[in-house]
Amino acid sequence: MTNSKQIKIYTDIMKAEGEWAAKTRQLLADHKITMYNLIGSPGCGKTALLEALLPLLAANRRCAVLEGDVETDRDAQRLGHLGIPVSQIITSGACHLNAQVVHRAVSELPLEELDIIVVENVGNLVCPSEFDIGETCKLAVLSVTEGEDKPLKYPLLFREAGAAVLTKLDLLPHVPFDLDRCLDFIKRVNGELSVFRVSALRGEGLDAPADWMYARSAEPPQPAH
Amino acid sequence: MTNSKQIKIYTDIMKAEGEWAAKTRQLLADHKITMYNLIGSPGCGKTALLEALLPLLAANRRCAVLEGDVETDRDAQRLGHLGIPVSQIITSGACHLNAQVVHRAVSELPLEELDIIVVENVGNLVCPSEFDIGETCKLAVLSVTEGEDKPLKYPLLFREAGAAVLTKLDLLPHVPFDLDRCLDFIKRVNGELSVFRVSALRGEGLDAPADWMYARSAEPPQPAH
Repeated sequence: MTNSKQIKIYTDIMKAEGEWAAKTRQLLADHKITMYNLIGSPGCGKTALLEALLPLLAANRRCAVLEGDVETDRDAQRLGHLGIPVSQIITSGACHLNAQVVHRAVSELPLEELDIIVVENVGNLVCPSEFDIGETCKLAVLSVTEGEDKPLKYPLLFREAGAAVLTKLDLLPHVPFDLDRCLDFIKRVNGELSVFRVSALRGEGLDAPADWMYARSAEPPQPAH
Repeated sequence: MTNSKQIKIYTDIMKAEGEWAAKTRQLLADHKITMYNLIGSPGCGKTALLEALLPLLAANRRCAVLEGDVETDRDAQRLGHLGIPVSQIITSGACHLNAQVVHRAVSELPLEELDIIVVENVGNLVCPSEFDIGETCKLAVLSVTEGEDKPLKYPLLFREAGAAVLTKLDLLPHVPFDLDRCLDFIKRVNGELSVFRVSALRGEGLDAPADWMYARSAEPPQPAH
């Protein structure tokens, strides 16, 4: 069913998307903002991770969040108490955030007052990995309840990401998940990847990923004397 | 970026896909085969559910499995010991099984010797719900580790499915998952849905979904006397 007209149009779309991503990247550079694109399965704990990480990040950096969901603004509501700008993008069925929509949402944030933007992509281990939204870096999120073979079965995300966060470590005693095998599988796919192990529920292991994200961002400007 | 040419081509693709799905449906009807399309997040326990369900189903019906994965044949290997036909479809990046690929895989099964085919779709709570592959019925799979709000956040699957299986019930004491709220959310999306609760790990609750699947299939032909 694939023909040259289809390929042409697909190429046009991807080119336009690439241009939106480049515009976002320029906007971020102009404002010395680091943008992380958080990607993982539905229910892997992305929002819980943000709830736990953002207070640590916000102690040193000015942060904002873009929440991507197929339906509902439940995740934005969950983060509302953090006192930072949170925007909800509802894709109404689409399986990933696209660069144009993200560009618009980024443009509407108070960029002069930010050092870090975290985008929580649509819960999906496949599609969001394929789309550049202008982020500085993708972060892979994988919960130990999903099984240790996911890096082999969904390699693209782990290949593209700058770091991976293993979540729900508190459930490790209760699930058939071989941590060493998982780390080995991640290494096979991407030997460069930093891997962090956290339990957002228990507040454990959060300093390491917070430090990593923090170290890759610019300091807020010092107030003039 | 959407234009009428894009819409035209999308319509053509969907029409061709619909034709493949109809062909598969006819093939299944000709052979009195029921085909279930299992859909859920990566790591929600679809393969573990099959490992536990298939011996129950196979006691009364002749079964086969089509395994869909982005990469690797790990899932087909996991089911290999069951002694039933198992085919692996590797999508090489694609986020769902399409009707044409499934038609080919179904055609290559020993259809004269089957009553039930179970398709395990690519781990993804979004995209596979949108594509008819000629199945008799979609089955939604949701693990209690994913959070009770998923039916609201990913409503299409729960709207389209004939039944839902809640998996990993053994983890309920360890996760912040409100079972009653989840059941209420499912009801809001689809009041008709049968919902089953299982722990594949402990072998608990499996009779009910097996009976449900079994009741919707034809008996194998009786041997001639």
